[in-house]
Amino acid sequence: MRAVDLIQKKKQGLKHTKEEINFLIDGYMKGTIEDYQMSAWLMAVCFKGLDIEETAYLTEAYINSGTILDFKDVAPHVADKHSTGGVGDKVTLVLIPLLASCGLYCAKLSGRGLGYTGGTIDKLESIKNFNCQLSTEDFKKQIKEIKAAISAQTPNLTPADGKTYAIRDVTATVDNKSLICASVVSKKIASGADYIVLDVKYGSGAFVKTKEEAGELAELMIEIGRQLKKEIRAVITSMEQPLGKCIGNALEVYESIEFLKGNYEQDLYDVTVKIASLLLLSGKIVKTEEEAVKLINEKIKNGDALNKLKEIISYQKGDTGVIDDYSILNISKDIYEVKADKSGYINRLDALSIAKACKIMGAGRDKKTDPIDFGVGAKLNAKVGDHVNEGDTLTYLYGTKNLNDAIELVKSAYIIEENKKEIDPLIYKTV
Amino acid sequence: MRAVDLIQKKKQGLKHTKEEINFLIDGYMKGTIEDYQMSAWLMAVCFKGLDIEETAYLTEAYINSGTILDFKDVAPHVADKHSTGGVGDKVTLVLIPLLASCGLYCAKLSGRGLGYTGGTIDKLESIKNFNCQLSTEDFKKQIKEIKAAISAQTPNLTPADGKTYAIRDVTATVDNKSLICASVVSKKIASGADYIVLDVKYGSGAFVKTKEEAGELAELMIEIGRQLKKEIRAVITSMEQPLGKCIGNALEVYESIEFLKGNYEQDLYDVTVKIASLLLLSGKIVKTEEEAVKLINEKIKNGDALNKLKEIISYQKGDTGVIDDYSILNISKDIYEVKADKSGYINRLDALSIAKACKIMGAGRDKKTDPIDFGVGAKLNAKVGDHVNEGDTLTYLYGTKNLNDAIELVKSAYIIEENKKEIDPLIYKTV
Repeated sequence: MRAVDLIQKKKQGLKHTKEEINFLIDGYMKGTIEDYQMSAWLMAVCFKGLDIEETAYLTEAYINSGTILDFKDVAPHVADKHSTGGVGDKVTLVLIPLLASCGLYCAKLSGRGLGYTGGTIDKLESIKNFNCQLSTEDFKKQIKEIKAAISAQTPNLTPADGKTYAIRDVTATVDNKSLICASVVSKKIASGADYIVLDVKYGSGAFVKTKEEAGELAELMIEIGRQLKKEIRAVITSMEQPLGKCIGNALEVYESIEFLKGNYEQDLYDVTVKIASLLLLSGKIVKTEEEAVKLINEKIKNGDALNKLKEIISYQKGDTGVIDDYSILNISKDIYEVKADKSGYINRLDALSIAKACKIMGAGRDKKTDPIDFGVGAKLNAKVGDHVNEGDTLTYLYGTKNLNDAIELVKSAYIIEENKKEIDPLIYKTV
Repeated sequence: MRAVDLIQKKKQGLKHTKEEINFLIDGYMKGTIEDYQMSAWLMAVCFKGLDIEETAYLTEAYINSGTILDFKDVAPHVADKHSTGGVGDKVTLVLIPLLASCGLYCAKLSGRGLGYTGGTIDKLESIKNFNCQLSTEDFKKQIKEIKAAISAQTPNLTPADGKTYAIRDVTATVDNKSLICASVVSKKIASGADYIVLDVKYGSGAFVKTKEEAGELAELMIEIGRQLKKEIRAVITSMEQPLGKCIGNALEVYESIEFLKGNYEQDLYDVTVKIASLLLLSGKIVKTEEEAVKLINEKIKNGDALNKLKEIISYQKGDTGVIDDYSILNISKDIYEVKADKSGYINRLDALSIAKACKIMGAGRDKKTDPIDFGVGAKLNAKVGDHVNEGDTLTYLYGTKNLNDAIELVKSAYIIEENKKEIDPLIYKTV
């Protein structure tokens, strides 16, 4: 078998066998297949596609390229959740303690963020001393003892996906459904979860722009899971406007703690509860969705979920004082109020513009090695559907870097009109 | 400008500006654009194409990446010829001395062969001591003094094409018309020729399989020439069966010398005379094609063309004794006669099978560093249209390596039938 022949085969739109996909990925990891051959193959894939079987082969090859985690010795089952990424998406921060407080084991491996704002790991690291670099041993021990742990991805999980992604990123071969799905699903399966819920986001602040596309991605990921004998469910949710009210690392931790204290934005609550319900059902903690919602509300009300977050922070060496004293989060004290220049209904609040504003203020990074300013970001004071009067505060901006440009971005994000428009429901569907 | 954006642009089928093509090629040569980005772009080009202007930009970028030869100080004009490659194609060996003997200056840079049989340089090196590695100075001096020189390409001619071709070869991105044409035309223009004739071959033994495809390639190359203000003409010729009767390095030198002595196969004569006529017309040595043919025949008949070959060999330190003593060529003395197993008309003589037979006997190479056995090959005793009786010799095979497989290949190349079939004319058209 030769790489050039496999590239030619895909270029002609022919279907690869499992052996061929393995040959490509194994060879790529061994170095017998070069980066330039992989990138040519990836480009051919962008044009000719991979069918569901080929995508499952690729996913499996990614999985087998590295470590596969197994929690059988510490927990009967573990749950995991993945979001395709959005603005103000702090669901993981509230979901994991919530589920653990409900009795479900959660093994959450998260990434650092590239792009507009930080990832879950960055957010957690805005809590003083929080340790996200757990060894596999400590990760498993923590899950066994307190049912939940959140750690940065170990480098040896699906290394073939990592190596492939590095060149996809610089060769315009990111936006292929099969490649995206193989990447996401392989990581989730290698992470050892038994129950997986994917939050596939669409809209201005998401990777995919339409709900139909998001639906296709979700269906494909579920089907790959089926081929590889892993139960995956998905919710398709809107990312037209940011989720919740805070965007930025420390600000999102603040909002998450408030959430678990019972002070939440409805949209963040709705998405979190939907995902939590699906996982509680999979884990047979509850029998119906109604029962799930009841349990979730109880765990918020009685403080168990908040205590679980405190326990996680404590286990991971973070400063648990943060639960009661937000000043520990060092959120910027330079606050600028962006005000409405007219009265009316907010008919649009563009997630991408808000994300860009936070990014240029220092909340995000371009390269993994770039520093992040945890304390900067935005707090939305008005969201889509709200009525505002001229002069009302739309958004509080925290920080000073590139402030004028950030203000312009925030202003451009809001569309205020006389008549209220209908908007899409937050949760498009569950698959 | 970023490479990834240009790859994305081509992936979307958008047109590049001249600046973008230059950015890609310059960056690739400087190392700021990586092999894997170039290969992804090349694959996108295979799917989305380059239009004529983009192809001309690419050609120009290739040309400007290295040395551009100029013969203004040694000759009023120089002619050049290029073949897209065929089996038994020794046209250059007879054409160059012929044209020079007619008074046209010829500066011929040739390559070594990859694939089934050697290239022009390999063939010439089967003449003892023949020196193909002329310095630019010696190359020009020889052209000035005897009107003709044949040398191996200097490494600094269109290096960007060389670097690009190296990855095209292993990423299944060879077969794109624009990339092929830019590669051929850039080399020809950088070689400094004023008049260029391309022999674009189609059929079993050629790179392109149909005359229509060959026609498209020819039109495109001529159009690129027009965009870059260089007159290019082309003939489209059949390569269904080998050209002439000999295939193999020393054997083709033998056939070329015989040709210049007046003993030629009609097909080789027809192609050579067509190309020679076009160049003699371009060079204003003659006014009509009839006049050209007359001059050519005269130069063969009076020995001038043969003497010119002798002069070239002498200038390039080769053993001129070869003209009268073929034993110097060291053609293998192990000769096997492949015989007809039935009587009838030869309706097909597959060039590719004959080429493969010669290759496995040692006449060709896979890598530039592989050795070639100059003395092996095939001499066809019967070609398409000939009638043979059972037991007649079809082909003489010279050599012993892989002989049985070579015999089978030769046998399979011949299709002998009761009724004679019409065949395509050798020269499809002139463009």
